[in-house]
Amino acid sequence: MDKIGISEKIKQLSTKKISNMYLSDFLLTWDKTMDELEAVFEVAEIFRDMRTNNISPKVFDSGLAISIFRDNSTRTRFSYASACNLLGLTVQDLDEGKSQIAHGETVRETANMVSFMADVIGIRDDMYLGAGHTYMKEVSESVYQGHLEGVLEQRPTLVNLQCDIDHPTQTMSDALHLINTFGGIEKLQGKKIAMTWAYSPSYGKPLSVPQGVIGLMTRLGMEVRFAHPKGYNVMSEVEEIAMRNCQESGGSFIKVDSMAEAFKDADIVYPKSWAPYKVMEERTELLKTQDHDGLKDLEKKCLENNKKFVDWECTEELMKSTHNGKGLYMHCLPADITGVSCEQGEVEASVFERYRVPQYMQASYKPYIIAAMIFLSKFKQPAERLMQVLDDNVMRWG
Amino acid sequence: MDKIGISEKIKQLSTKKISNMYLSDFLLTWDKTMDELEAVFEVAEIFRDMRTNNISPKVFDSGLAISIFRDNSTRTRFSYASACNLLGLTVQDLDEGKSQIAHGETVRETANMVSFMADVIGIRDDMYLGAGHTYMKEVSESVYQGHLEGVLEQRPTLVNLQCDIDHPTQTMSDALHLINTFGGIEKLQGKKIAMTWAYSPSYGKPLSVPQGVIGLMTRLGMEVRFAHPKGYNVMSEVEEIAMRNCQESGGSFIKVDSMAEAFKDADIVYPKSWAPYKVMEERTELLKTQDHDGLKDLEKKCLENNKKFVDWECTEELMKSTHNGKGLYMHCLPADITGVSCEQGEVEASVFERYRVPQYMQASYKPYIIAAMIFLSKFKQPAERLMQVLDDNVMRWG
Amino acid sequence: MDKIGISEKIKQLSTKKISNMYLSDFLLTWDKTMDELEAVFEVAEIFRDMRTNNISPKVFDSGLAISIFRDNSTRTRFSYASACNLLGLTVQDLDEGKSQIAHGETVRETANMVSFMADVIGIRDDMYLGAGHTYMKEVSESVYQGHLEGVLEQRPTLVNLQCDIDHPTQTMSDALHLINTFGGIEKLQGKKIAMTWAYSPSYGKPLSVPQGVIGLMTRLGMEVRFAHPKGYNVMSEVEEIAMRNCQESGGSFIKVDSMAEAFKDADIVYPKSWAPYKVMEERTELLKTQDHDGLKDLEKKCLENNKKFVDWECTEELMKSTHNGKGLYMHCLPADITGVSCEQGEVEASVFERYRVPQYMQASYKPYIIAAMIFLSKFKQPAERLMQVLDDNVMRWG
Repeated sequence: MDKIGISEKIKQLSTKKISNMYLSDFLLTWDKTMDELEAVFEVAEIFRDMRTNNISPKVFDSGLAISIFRDNSTRTRFSYASACNLLGLTVQDLDEGKSQIAHGETVRETANMVSFMADVIGIRDDMYLGAGHTYMKEVSESVYQGHLEGVLEQRPTLVNLQCDIDHPTQTMSDALHLINTFGGIEKLQGKKIAMTWAYSPSYGKPLSVPQGVIGLMTRLGMEVRFAHPKGYNVMSEVEEIAMRNCQESGGSFIKVDSMAEAFKDADIVYPKSWAPYKVMEERTELLKTQDHDGLKDLEKKCLENNKKFVDWECTEELMKSTHNGKGLYMHCLPADITGVSCEQGEVEASVFERYRVPQYMQASYKPYIIAAMIFLSKFKQPAERLMQVLDDNVMRWG
Repeated sequence: MDKIGISEKIKQLSTKKISNMYLSDFLLTWDKTMDELEAVFEVAEIFRDMRTNNISPKVFDSGLAISIFRDNSTRTRFSYASACNLLGLTVQDLDEGKSQIAHGETVRETANMVSFMADVIGIRDDMYLGAGHTYMKEVSESVYQGHLEGVLEQRPTLVNLQCDIDHPTQTMSDALHLINTFGGIEKLQGKKIAMTWAYSPSYGKPLSVPQGVIGLMTRLGMEVRFAHPKGYNVMSEVEEIAMRNCQESGGSFIKVDSMAEAFKDADIVYPKSWAPYKVMEERTELLKTQDHDGLKDLEKKCLENNKKFVDWECTEELMKSTHNGKGLYMHCLPADITGVSCEQGEVEASVFERYRVPQYMQASYKPYIIAAMIFLSKFKQPAERLMQVLDDNVMRWG
Repeated sequence: MDKIGISEKIKQLSTKKISNMYLSDFLLTWDKTMDELEAVFEVAEIFRDMRTNNISPKVFDSGLAISIFRDNSTRTRFSYASACNLLGLTVQDLDEGKSQIAHGETVRETANMVSFMADVIGIRDDMYLGAGHTYMKEVSESVYQGHLEGVLEQRPTLVNLQCDIDHPTQTMSDALHLINTFGGIEKLQGKKIAMTWAYSPSYGKPLSVPQGVIGLMTRLGMEVRFAHPKGYNVMSEVEEIAMRNCQESGGSFIKVDSMAEAFKDADIVYPKSWAPYKVMEERTELLKTQDHDGLKDLEKKCLENNKKFVDWECTEELMKSTHNGKGLYMHCLPADITGVSCEQGEVEASVFERYRVPQYMQASYKPYIIAAMIFLSKFKQPAERLMQVLDDNVMRWG
């Protein structure tokens, strides 16, 4: 893609109705209009093309990007750092301690105290069902109010780097990967994607990826087949959103009972482990009361229950049943690979390895997706600003 | 404030005698002349106005700002990071371990080894009475010597981010808040400020805020009324400084025995908990010998003693006794708020809440104060350099 | 050195055959040609001169520099941060946990996942004999492949910040210190350097410094005398490299049995403690199996054995036997100084103190050496690019 191509993409962006994105957070994909989602895809692509052409979109001369990770994170941390660095922002970590669920006054005060020169706040808070999204809303309202009150010179906008409900930077990257793999967003209409549970010898994996996937892919007109063992259901609110989405998009949301049913003739498969909703709910309560024995018991019970569904594995045999035997395998990584990272896991090693490069590509969109989310929330006239970046033609390096 | 206004402020700065600030540290406010203190206020305001006008004062193209925090710190860390980022410096943390008091050879060597490309060193070391300020002097002398010896290409200057004696970035922010609240530094002459102890169910809070406040506000011609329960006295050296200050400034330093006396007709009140000097001294010794049982005993004793003074609380009733019932409530934050952050604390919730926004404003000056301290120690002709920033008119973002 | 002088140095650089450095890692000095090593020295000097002249060689507008430290490190961390900052790169730490030896699939995946916008990866992994260098090769191959596969937009190059075999950023700084002390690289021909073991009351110090020194100094035509107590030998592969080097350089590699023999008439002495090869091998096995009792036993045994050689100390008496009694004392720091940092250590206090400033100078080259290594691996035409930096004449600060 050369500079003329980038310029064409920017012109396309300028036709979108996206004025509401200015100074707004990116918390849940279903809070955004289709134009807004498409704008994120387009700006992400523009940034990627600019980078390939060694053009620097450093639109901030200085400014802080706060990161709050309430869970260990290497990959998301680097994606966020990459996005901020690309735009000229410096990441500053706020380490509140992993086990602490802050509330009310403390959240408001801390949010303001750290934000005097912060343009963006990225938060990952996926450990507590019912808490992550709520916490993000509290932070958002705190800095909004702080700006109104004259405390904050600018208003920092939030990017959800994973909460208990949605994982928009992941699923938007997933979707952009599909758009590029299938040759355009319109090509996704009617495509069959199997979002299924898969066995893993681990415990407590968040629900935000399956929830985010069914909440976004139904939006794009896809036929989403959702399968999991009994008890491993996700938040019913998100399932309702998925169903509502289909009415507008022409997509469909179909719950089936096995991997086999979900995989049959699928264009894409996304088999992945997660904890049962009930377990996550129970876990949240135990964490709140610091009931360590209860937590150990729960983990043990849960791992034992998992073992009943050890046959939920993405095998070569199952892959053969996908569309022309060539369905696209996806994973948000890291995956539990049978015989590689564990004895028995989510996916057969040969399947994983065959799709290794596409998976890495899938992940490679994340820094650009995050940069696009930040950019669209900070610039009132994003297309004009991008055109100016193109004209300025500052080299990223060299 | 528009660009013409900023330009006027810069002209005012150029009349100050501040040549000694060049390449000097900012460790104690009482080591500085009035012209120097006023220069810090003025440059802080200029930076704030520049930011409001989206003008970037990024005077460093590259360079490191070392941070050494010997105590947990979120707010000061972010203020320092914000200031450095504004000026173009990159923060690099030096984590020496919290419990270690380094001495002599080690300090000299480490200070030099990390400073080959460091322009600034910010240190917070408030845990050990008799150690924090001493450590800063050691670091300062080490890098001064290192520069003389040709080891360091530049000479890093120090900013005291809180020591055992003073907390200049806090109190200078406090003072700038007062200057802006009352309409000018000359308006502070004769204003009554109550710096008083207040009850908190916590232990070991440093003395540097009350010491810093009485050491600075007496400088500005204020009537400082200082009150604390018996035994909760601060360093006598600082009280002497406060008294000496008054002779020059026309202010006064009055010790009273109760919150009520201190609050009577006060224009400003600053009720805040701290540990008794004797306890801090004992604690330092116990920390040095790693006497964990001794430390536990001391904490227990101290908390019990605190409880005798649970009525030292900033109540609505007391606030009514201040000037016109409208004295300005201040706190360096976080405060122990009765019924909010603890059962019984320093301040009634309604008082705190009524002054929440002013308190946030008070804190908002800190990044600018720190940036001003750094800037004035690194530029020989600060007014000229600021005028050039104004002329260059580089956008902070956009 | 003024701008004309810098320009002369750049012209000299352009005569070197260094095209293979482009996009290559810097892992072991003996993998590099003499022209390549000299280029590193020259670029380091050019960067130092530029800094003295306040010229900024910020050749990256944005970009990440990953750091992976598998061992605590303050000094190397700051040197790496300084180098990256000088060039315009932002450091992002990858904290994989100190005790974990990652393998195969995990290394490949993580290396790619963090490198989407990474230009450089600096790794320190010196704890496990047989693992550090191997790990670096795995990371290097992973990102090389990732770039070929289109996953990574650019190809990050590696800098070895210390492995189990070599410590090139240290020894190249040491060598540059010698070049400047003796007045040119050609002056090192035939100079006598004593690389000897010295007693220290510590355990498990890596072998990479002595190995790196004998592997590099023999290259520069020096007479390297290597001495250690029985059992404290280093990797035999590196000794063989040292011997081979001499055939080309005209230097010599002589093993002697005592400090006294090594020091006799030496121009330079480098007495330093390290663990016996056998112990490090055993330790690696025990660490792999997490045998904590075994590790404790090994440490105890090793410390006891060390004590037999307490007389391996760099004394004033021994220093008198060096060339004209004025041999240059070197240490990679921190040193174990008798009566200062320990009761009985590697060097007498008065010797250390007399050579304190030269040692600090020795260390001061490291940020420039690292910057040179990075620069030479990222720019196809380094001399042209440096000349452009000189012409652009951007101020580092002011």
